[in-house]
Amino acid sequence: MADKLKEILSPVSEELAKVDINIKKNLETGVPFIDKSALHLFAKGGKKIRASLVILSAAMGGEVTERVIELAAAVEIIHAASLVHDDIIDKSFLRRGDLSVPSKFGDKVAVLAGDYMYLTAVGIAVDNSNKKILKSLSKATREMVQGELYQLEYSNIDKITQEHYYNIINRKTAQLMAASAFIGGAEVGFDDNRCNALYSMGLDLGYAFQIVDDTLDFSESSEVTGKDIGNDFKDGKITLPFIYILNSGDEADRSKVMDFYRSPDDADFAEIKDLIHRSGAFDFSLAKAREFAQRSKDWLDIFESSIYKDIIIEIINFVVERNY
Amino acid sequence: MADKLKEILSPVSEELAKVDINIKKNLETGVPFIDKSALHLFAKGGKKIRASLVILSAAMGGEVTERVIELAAAVEIIHAASLVHDDIIDKSFLRRGDLSVPSKFGDKVAVLAGDYMYLTAVGIAVDNSNKKILKSLSKATREMVQGELYQLEYSNIDKITQEHYYNIINRKTAQLMAASAFIGGAEVGFDDNRCNALYSMGLDLGYAFQIVDDTLDFSESSEVTGKDIGNDFKDGKITLPFIYILNSGDEADRSKVMDFYRSPDDADFAEIKDLIHRSGAFDFSLAKAREFAQRSKDWLDIFESSIYKDIIIEIINFVVERNY
Repeated sequence: MADKLKEILSPVSEELAKVDINIKKNLETGVPFIDKSALHLFAKGGKKIRASLVILSAAMGGEVTERVIELAAAVEIIHAASLVHDDIIDKSFLRRGDLSVPSKFGDKVAVLAGDYMYLTAVGIAVDNSNKKILKSLSKATREMVQGELYQLEYSNIDKITQEHYYNIINRKTAQLMAASAFIGGAEVGFDDNRCNALYSMGLDLGYAFQIVDDTLDFSESSEVTGKDIGNDFKDGKITLPFIYILNSGDEADRSKVMDFYRSPDDADFAEIKDLIHRSGAFDFSLAKAREFAQRSKDWLDIFESSIYKDIIIEIINFVVERNY
Repeated sequence: MADKLKEILSPVSEELAKVDINIKKNLETGVPFIDKSALHLFAKGGKKIRASLVILSAAMGGEVTERVIELAAAVEIIHAASLVHDDIIDKSFLRRGDLSVPSKFGDKVAVLAGDYMYLTAVGIAVDNSNKKILKSLSKATREMVQGELYQLEYSNIDKITQEHYYNIINRKTAQLMAASAFIGGAEVGFDDNRCNALYSMGLDLGYAFQIVDDTLDFSESSEVTGKDIGNDFKDGKITLPFIYILNSGDEADRSKVMDFYRSPDDADFAEIKDLIHRSGAFDFSLAKAREFAQRSKDWLDIFESSIYKDIIIEIINFVVERNY
């Protein structure tokens, strides 16, 4: 399945390789433990959906210049920084199929490595972009962190509502994808109308992406996502499948969810997973994700046909079809 | 002694009050726990030396506009963000005479609150400044975090040297003070020569400030700094007074320091403190700080006399005369 995405992105593999080099160039200090901790997450690559959005949005309107590559590197670094800090907060042991930064280097280093990554990305953006691009990226990054904070406060069984859920995923995931597409387009000089369409495309893709991510926690598949399965729920994080049961399930199902929530137990997780499927919560959530994916694609209607537009559409399809 | 600084800054108290209002305006989201955690450190105010440097450097050359206030707010937020993350790393219980953010709100919130504060400050700078100012602030902030990382790696008894020590305090403290003075001057249009003098003044002040801070850990005074006394050394952080003993002390003193370092004990701290004084390490460090303070003042020679210049000089004097 990872190969599937690689295949989709193969026409821009050269540009993505340049992004990797650029990330390394920008984060490297010559001090071994800083470089190792800051670059750790990039060793396994990750999906690079955000970098691809920058590159493909730019490619639809012009040349993929060195500045476009720099911006693509900046969004990947921002995304990785948020993962480093998330892994402290969630005490996640694994990330991208390897040890997480806090489990490999300790929480102290992880706090500062994340800061260093955020501020390096800001530095790249400051050096390479105009005010419009800088504002978009800085706003999205700030909102991403706000989304994580909202999640800490509202993503629990006592407070969560569908509205809170969408508010959280808008900020923590969708805004940065929206900004990625927007800045790629803005860098090559698309007009406001097209830049805004790219923004909306990325936003809806972000919603679709996060709903799928939250739903795959309860996947029947034995394939591993590179994260600890079911972690979110065990951490007390309530996502769309559970909200569906809390809102639409029968009394017995609701109380089963509540019981598990109060004392989560690995042994009971299979039963909870079963419930998610039996109740229709799994299908409901994936259907929601597909709605967002369709809307995301619709925003591209105003762009003329091109190989780059086709790749974006394939990415959107991939996001809702993937099983990791 | 806190009153002494307040008295020095009284001619700009109106501007500093505006900075407080601005910090609040920029950090407030309407979500109570975000606002409480992000604003917690500002309740007790802090010394606001960095905001003062922005304001006073600007005032020497022009009007203290709303943009100057915004920049002063941004540097204070950056400084506070670094304290929030430091307090996670050092497990500090107290800060500014109150509970630290991690001890009041927990580490999870503190990680994200610090991120949110950094990114809010970046947003303020992006909205309010030109490239020159943005670059200076973004570079200083990134270097500050690098300094903290260097400290984790090098500020221990096996690796520390005088060179590492100065490299660490350059980054973790001096660069942001340098940038504060620089951006205040740049905002009112001082020429490069004057902007660079302001930068150097802030840099030397930063060195002086941090050396005094590190030395006051071993102060005889019973007055409390609002931080846990002697914490740095107990955390295994080796600062200038210890480097002096390690480099210049006799064998007995050196081995006493090594022994204490290997198994720090509150009961032995009085003896270590005594050693710091008896060996001349305390006086040596404060003399070094005074050298930097003198250099800092010398950079101001090219500016014409004004009440604002006088206040900066008084701040520099205060920094090396304070006992907290």
